[in-house]
Amino acid sequence: MVGLMSFASNNVHRSILNRNSSDKDTSFEKINNIVGFSVDSYENGAHRMNDEGGAENQILEAIKLRHEYMERSGNDFPDIVTSFIKNRFEYESQKCYKSTINDTSYNPPEPPSDHWMLNMPLPKYEKSYKLIREDGVFRIKNGLGEYVKEFEKYFLEKKKYLKDYEKIVGIVSDGPLKSFCYRRLSYLQNRFQLHLLRNEQRELHEQKTVRHRDFYNVRKVDTHVHAASSMNQKHLLRFIKRKMKLEKDTIVMEKNGKGITMGEMFKGLNIEAYDLNVDMLDVHAYKNAFHRLDKFNHKYNPIGESALKQIFISTDNHVGGKYFAEVLKEVFKDLEESKYQHIEPRLSIYGHKKNEWSKLAKWAINHDVWSTNSKFLIQIPRLYDVYRENKLLGNFDQLLDNIFTPLFEVTNDPSSDPNLFRFLLQITGIDSVDDESKHEYIQFDKFSPNPKDFVDAENPPYTYYVYYLYANLSMLNAFRKSRNLNTLSLKLHSGETGHPHHLIDSFLTAESICHGLLLRKLPVLQYLFYLTKIGISMSPLANNSLLIPYHRNPLPEFLMKGLNVSLSTDDPLQFHLTKEALMEEYSIAVQVWKLSPTDMCELALNSVKQSGFDKKIKIYWLGPHYRKEGVLGNDITKTNVPDIRVAFRYECLVDELQHIFNCNK
Amino acid sequence: MVGLMSFASNNVHRSILNRNSSDKDTSFEKINNIVGFSVDSYENGAHRMNDEGGAENQILEAIKLRHEYMERSGNDFPDIVTSFIKNRFEYESQKCYKSTINDTSYNPPEPPSDHWMLNMPLPKYEKSYKLIREDGVFRIKNGLGEYVKEFEKYFLEKKKYLKDYEKIVGIVSDGPLKSFCYRRLSYLQNRFQLHLLRNEQRELHEQKTVRHRDFYNVRKVDTHVHAASSMNQKHLLRFIKRKMKLEKDTIVMEKNGKGITMGEMFKGLNIEAYDLNVDMLDVHAYKNAFHRLDKFNHKYNPIGESALKQIFISTDNHVGGKYFAEVLKEVFKDLEESKYQHIEPRLSIYGHKKNEWSKLAKWAINHDVWSTNSKFLIQIPRLYDVYRENKLLGNFDQLLDNIFTPLFEVTNDPSSDPNLFRFLLQITGIDSVDDESKHEYIQFDKFSPNPKDFVDAENPPYTYYVYYLYANLSMLNAFRKSRNLNTLSLKLHSGETGHPHHLIDSFLTAESICHGLLLRKLPVLQYLFYLTKIGISMSPLANNSLLIPYHRNPLPEFLMKGLNVSLSTDDPLQFHLTKEALMEEYSIAVQVWKLSPTDMCELALNSVKQSGFDKKIKIYWLGPHYRKEGVLGNDITKTNVPDIRVAFRYECLVDELQHIFNCNK
Repeated sequence: MVGLMSFASNNVHRSILNRNSSDKDTSFEKINNIVGFSVDSYENGAHRMNDEGGAENQILEAIKLRHEYMERSGNDFPDIVTSFIKNRFEYESQKCYKSTINDTSYNPPEPPSDHWMLNMPLPKYEKSYKLIREDGVFRIKNGLGEYVKEFEKYFLEKKKYLKDYEKIVGIVSDGPLKSFCYRRLSYLQNRFQLHLLRNEQRELHEQKTVRHRDFYNVRKVDTHVHAASSMNQKHLLRFIKRKMKLEKDTIVMEKNGKGITMGEMFKGLNIEAYDLNVDMLDVHAYKNAFHRLDKFNHKYNPIGESALKQIFISTDNHVGGKYFAEVLKEVFKDLEESKYQHIEPRLSIYGHKKNEWSKLAKWAINHDVWSTNSKFLIQIPRLYDVYRENKLLGNFDQLLDNIFTPLFEVTNDPSSDPNLFRFLLQITGIDSVDDESKHEYIQFDKFSPNPKDFVDAENPPYTYYVYYLYANLSMLNAFRKSRNLNTLSLKLHSGETGHPHHLIDSFLTAESICHGLLLRKLPVLQYLFYLTKIGISMSPLANNSLLIPYHRNPLPEFLMKGLNVSLSTDDPLQFHLTKEALMEEYSIAVQVWKLSPTDMCELALNSVKQSGFDKKIKIYWLGPHYRKEGVLGNDITKTNVPDIRVAFRYECLVDELQHIFNCNK
Repeated sequence: MVGLMSFASNNVHRSILNRNSSDKDTSFEKINNIVGFSVDSYENGAHRMNDEGGAENQILEAIKLRHEYMERSGNDFPDIVTSFIKNRFEYESQKCYKSTINDTSYNPPEPPSDHWMLNMPLPKYEKSYKLIREDGVFRIKNGLGEYVKEFEKYFLEKKKYLKDYEKIVGIVSDGPLKSFCYRRLSYLQNRFQLHLLRNEQRELHEQKTVRHRDFYNVRKVDTHVHAASSMNQKHLLRFIKRKMKLEKDTIVMEKNGKGITMGEMFKGLNIEAYDLNVDMLDVHAYKNAFHRLDKFNHKYNPIGESALKQIFISTDNHVGGKYFAEVLKEVFKDLEESKYQHIEPRLSIYGHKKNEWSKLAKWAINHDVWSTNSKFLIQIPRLYDVYRENKLLGNFDQLLDNIFTPLFEVTNDPSSDPNLFRFLLQITGIDSVDDESKHEYIQFDKFSPNPKDFVDAENPPYTYYVYYLYANLSMLNAFRKSRNLNTLSLKLHSGETGHPHHLIDSFLTAESICHGLLLRKLPVLQYLFYLTKIGISMSPLANNSLLIPYHRNPLPEFLMKGLNVSLSTDDPLQFHLTKEALMEEYSIAVQVWKLSPTDMCELALNSVKQSGFDKKIKIYWLGPHYRKEGVLGNDITKTNVPDIRVAFRYECLVDELQHIFNCNK
């Protein structure tokens, strides 16, 4: 039996690997034959049930819109879909890259000796622009006060956004289209099951034959985790205890102009270092947090004291964020020791003060909070109403001013804030976070006030936030690109709970999203997410505590259908028990959903692709052609994902895209 | 709110802790008032539905039988049930022990400097007995050839065992009794839910107020794990790779009289150290092992090669079990570093050779395989048929001879095998293992042949094995006790799969069991297990891979009802992904079943109580009165289990026992 399998599998290998023929049809048929479906599988069956007509047109329109939005913001869009849009998809482009793999890709890129580039001179730009915020969105003018053409095409008008949003609302709510997409998705799921029944043993066999590589030493990125809760509860507890002992005379806060030491503060709370335990720390979410995101947010306060949060897990406090930097660096050190586990932690910019960015950059650089295993994102909580109530802000425009002005200014003139300039080079994206289930009292429509006139005490809706984030970020990215600087991705918390239509915003604007649970209620969007391969970073343990029992989480279903999902921890402080939060997350998923080693490695591969790590790092981790779709982009010796799985995914996607696009020729 | 709770809870504390009044009824009522039920809760409701009559009598009979069997084998039986049987249960016996806690109990017992007692002279006994195996069971005679009276009362006749077994079969299958027990169990479960609704917040509050102690630093014992699979797959992989590199010239096996080195062996398998990966190792149980215990047992062979199992995870091989000792000691070291995690690994005695015990003892002592965090058990696989087929044995009696003769002989005369004598002092019990689902072709009844006449090629049934294990062990324990030596517990793999009646054997003979999944099909036995507090060591992750999906595992239900369950890993090599297998097991249970910190600590407490660690160690871990039932035996500063939970469990148990015993007065 083993002999037979091995023979079959060798054939598979050979037929995939030796394929660099010019005969495009034959080569594609070969892939199909391998995984056991014919090219016209789309036609046979599901398609004929589509009596609705025009479904494909609507899908196409939505895909093109997303493409336009991603082009504008400079965020990632899959090459294969672009090639369909530009009508230049052909199998020939699938030439064999395997043979061209450069052995140097096996050498790790040198870790930068000066990762903050402190010894590099700041760039000096000849051109300096006038930056003006008009109706909440930055515009770039030249010395004469004229809009700079080069950047104007990246500007998105509010009116257009509302129109596009409404268009997608219409598409998402279209009854016949819902049925169409639901059937396509069911078809994809069944097709995957068929694939497993035929090829599961071959997949395992392919994995066994790869030298050295296994699930433990493929790269994994924790694509969604908040820096303030990236350590587990026991870690934070030990850290606090240690600090209570060693730094009891350090002044950690001020009250009525008088400095209060660590010792005095804990005395005030009537706590000694020895006493403290995990139960008292009370940061873990147990069943009483279920459907209580409001309560959950309080879990960030150790012992229910916001003072402790302020001292230990905040970047801006009396000790200059020293403790937070230390504990984060401990988290990084553990990851570096694990070697293959990486992290994308989120740091907060609230937008209620102008100097937040500057302070954060200073904190990161002064404490050297950096690791080869980590890439920071910035999260912006949607808390305008809170700041407004506390009179920190007068209108919504001030929030945008606080968030974006420093970014544009430092891009315009690096010397205006060298720290921030250097810090931004290490940031990969921006996230927007908050409890999505809060009721939205206001709608975003053409009557909505401009940010300057938005003085309401209520919070503006999700869409309003997203539009202004996206519009500003598009301009910023265009500006940064013109100066050869890194650009930022827009990654959004979306579809965790609340109104499912938040997912429409993220479909248009976000490079990838966190959660996306509510996609299960919107088949059209789910299908669109599939077709455009939008990254979905899911955290089933967090969901299990807050929203949906583990065994009902849609992740395994999404994975079967071929959506681009990855596993992430969200908040190890609140949800995880062991020292290795990400491995714990994988372990539970594997056990409860009975995932195979191939599924595990596919999830890990997705996480790396979704992450914001540099291209040359990704080449080292995944192989030089990792951006290519299908087997030709897959290097199993690095990913441990069998070619047969990758070929199957590729084939399904091409089938779906081909049908959508062919109907519109 | 917090203030109020704290006040309420302080009252609870005071009323429990200050209770040392002589007024027994008042004090008991107080406990009841705390947890919110009246003393006569049994009478109100469920009891009246019991129209069957005689149910209590049957339950009583079964309890008394178990008591008799535990007395005979010298295994543990709960004091509280004994006091009911002896009709001397009274609340007065619940006097407050809290005040008498001796502070010295907080000092850890000194770790023995000479744990194998190599420097201690062997004891010399004046009396030497004649040991004779009659019909498979050891009997002890004096110099005159007469049975020694002192020991004769511990002898269990086959006829009596069959009679008792049949009695329990009758009780377990009695229809009305099934309904009665099912109702009692449902009542217990509902009562627990009521308790939680009333007192969950108080429980959490009690835990928060305990200095220092939390789930991470309460003691936990992995009560069921096989030594050969106690490391995880990555650990074993790394170990093998290291050995391949460092010891490639070591001769590891013999073939045709010629020594074969490690390097040659791996060359034969066509494997280099670098190549080896976890997928190739193939010891992990994925979904294809579901309901395939046969397949699962092959997973013990790394790379499917029994040679590797023989070399790396066996005690008796060409290198004298050196590698197995080394890897086990690495497991122990990790546990010692964790400090609070302990383990009861099982080592195998097969019974197909006479010198197995001697070799095993030599292996353990020579390699010093010992740790403060570990206590060994011996597992005896039920593989007579395999040895018979391979002509290693001629009849079943030879198996018993190989297993028990060395034990009796060394107890009779320590100098006959000093190593074994010393090794046995460190062993806490005997387990019987194998795939329970194998069909039993033979039944154990009065016509069954005696072991000497059992020459059949088929395996004898579970019951047959258990009777001979138990009968011999009872004699051995009586013998050892008379010489002031440690006795052995009988712990059985039971009720994992196969015929549920295996649980009847273990109800009669076993101190505690592993698995017990099938209790959910036998309400009468389940109720009896509850009443007699039989330890059930459950491994839901192992079950999930082999027998029952995680979310359908009966553990949370058993825990609610108050059965004495603990969590264990069974085979980290096959089931666990992270470095901390036991914590992974807890983590998944907590997340999937939404256990509270109190539940977690109760499970940990159960595991310590079930374990075979020395009494003085348990006193250090749990407090000096840990054997007392109820709050008086609970030291929350060590167990982190709130008094209110312990009081509730005590109250429920007393209610049930009182009813059973009162009906029979």
